[in-house]
Amino acid sequence: MTLEIISSNKSFGGWHHRYRHHSATLHCDMAFAVYLPPQAQEGAKLPVLYWLSGLTCTDENFMQKAGAQRLAAELGLVLVAPDTSPRGADVPGDPDGAWDFGHGAGFYLNATQEPWAQHYRMHDYVVHELPALVEASFPVSDRRGISGHSMGGHGALVCALRNPGRYRSLSAFAPIGNPSNCPWGDKAFSRYLGSDRDDWRRWDACALLAQAAERLPILVDQGDADSFLATQLKPEVLRAAAAAVGHPLTLRLQPGYDHSYYFIASFIDDHLRHHAAALHG
Amino acid sequence: MTLEIISSNKSFGGWHHRYRHHSATLHCDMAFAVYLPPQAQEGAKLPVLYWLSGLTCTDENFMQKAGAQRLAAELGLVLVAPDTSPRGADVPGDPDGAWDFGHGAGFYLNATQEPWAQHYRMHDYVVHELPALVEASFPVSDRRGISGHSMGGHGALVCALRNPGRYRSLSAFAPIGNPSNCPWGDKAFSRYLGSDRDDWRRWDACALLAQAAERLPILVDQGDADSFLATQLKPEVLRAAAAAVGHPLTLRLQPGYDHSYYFIASFIDDHLRHHAAALHG
Repeated sequence: MTLEIISSNKSFGGWHHRYRHHSATLHCDMAFAVYLPPQAQEGAKLPVLYWLSGLTCTDENFMQKAGAQRLAAELGLVLVAPDTSPRGADVPGDPDGAWDFGHGAGFYLNATQEPWAQHYRMHDYVVHELPALVEASFPVSDRRGISGHSMGGHGALVCALRNPGRYRSLSAFAPIGNPSNCPWGDKAFSRYLGSDRDDWRRWDACALLAQAAERLPILVDQGDADSFLATQLKPEVLRAAAAAVGHPLTLRLQPGYDHSYYFIASFIDDHLRHHAAALHG
Repeated sequence: MTLEIISSNKSFGGWHHRYRHHSATLHCDMAFAVYLPPQAQEGAKLPVLYWLSGLTCTDENFMQKAGAQRLAAELGLVLVAPDTSPRGADVPGDPDGAWDFGHGAGFYLNATQEPWAQHYRMHDYVVHELPALVEASFPVSDRRGISGHSMGGHGALVCALRNPGRYRSLSAFAPIGNPSNCPWGDKAFSRYLGSDRDDWRRWDACALLAQAAERLPILVDQGDADSFLATQLKPEVLRAAAAAVGHPLTLRLQPGYDHSYYFIASFIDDHLRHHAAALHG
């Protein structure tokens, strides 16, 4: 568990660091980013919000564009942003070079099919290996929240719903709410998981909600001008799945907002407060 | 003065738009960005803060990374971000492909030397053509502020100091304070302006301060861990030039901060309030 520092930037009185390390789970080197608020210098063990980014992103998009560090510094939240897939010359990507599968598109699951199964284990990386590394390396507690955008919103929902007790707070921006039934999910799941759709249900928030062992409240924001809304994201299916079992879901349709980081930045403060209330409580 | 829309994103209740237009000053097509806060939909004529970015940037860096739109929406400030140089296949760039001259490095001056003189007139574009276009196209007043980063901090200082009465507020982040006496400025000025150093003084904030016709208060933030501090930025020379003539300059050395947008984001709210106080006053 050796961390190699890539870069450091002072930010809002705290520090944004990027690190590289070898992931035993993914069998490749991975980069991730940590924002340590000013309170990290005072010896307290701080809670951590994990952020999972969307298709094509790295650890950098959220840290550069979301504007989250200002309020995280005030609330005393550590932010951790992993990459969105295994990377490197040895890691197979999309055979056609597409942007919605392979590199930058790990979908936060554990692949079972070849040639993906060796490297594409982002669920285990995000849920187990990365937190163990973070909790061994920084002044943080085991109070964890998780959020994300689009593919990463799907990832946040699935990571929390599959692992009751592991997260104290959960939210998502424009998540792929029902990946078993949309083109992005169909492409990814059929390759990573194979053709048996019963196997897909273990990685689909709507299916997982039906059997969730805990009722962690979920905050979801979704722009109603998001070009992926009807075909890929399907928040109404997520809403129905939560309603069917009485799972607490606050789903806010935000008029005029699209799928960009301008949308995320506009509402990130609400999400940070949602997480801080549960993580500090 | 035809504006072609490139993209629009709702942001903090307002709108971030990117436009393309043909610049008669620069003899090429130019892109720029406007952030219209929610108050722009209410019919009021709002003041405008112009932001000049640094070397290698476009209009996008500030809008994506500075986190300025949150408070601009609250304060009712329009933000306008031009590109950092003329662009296009017809516009000559650095003969060696360097990043600190030519495309992305217009230095906000009017070039007098060939082959630069036809296109490299960023001063006139930023001070005259772009505001005329903005004021004809959006619900804005003629109350203008100007700020920028690094090369754009130099640009903001020079645009305001050369044009008394045109701006009501002025600030800069890590400006190239004395470009006549640093490697970046030496390279740019010797090519754009020629070898006569007397001509350089009209584009150097320290020289302009000595003869400034108005005493517009200046707010400058500078990180003390900025790797360009000693060789390129030289804030102490700017401080001495202001002190010599009693020009009001608040120069804050921020401990631990570097030259990145994490530094800008950390202090942008102070600058927005500095501008809003003068622009709304």
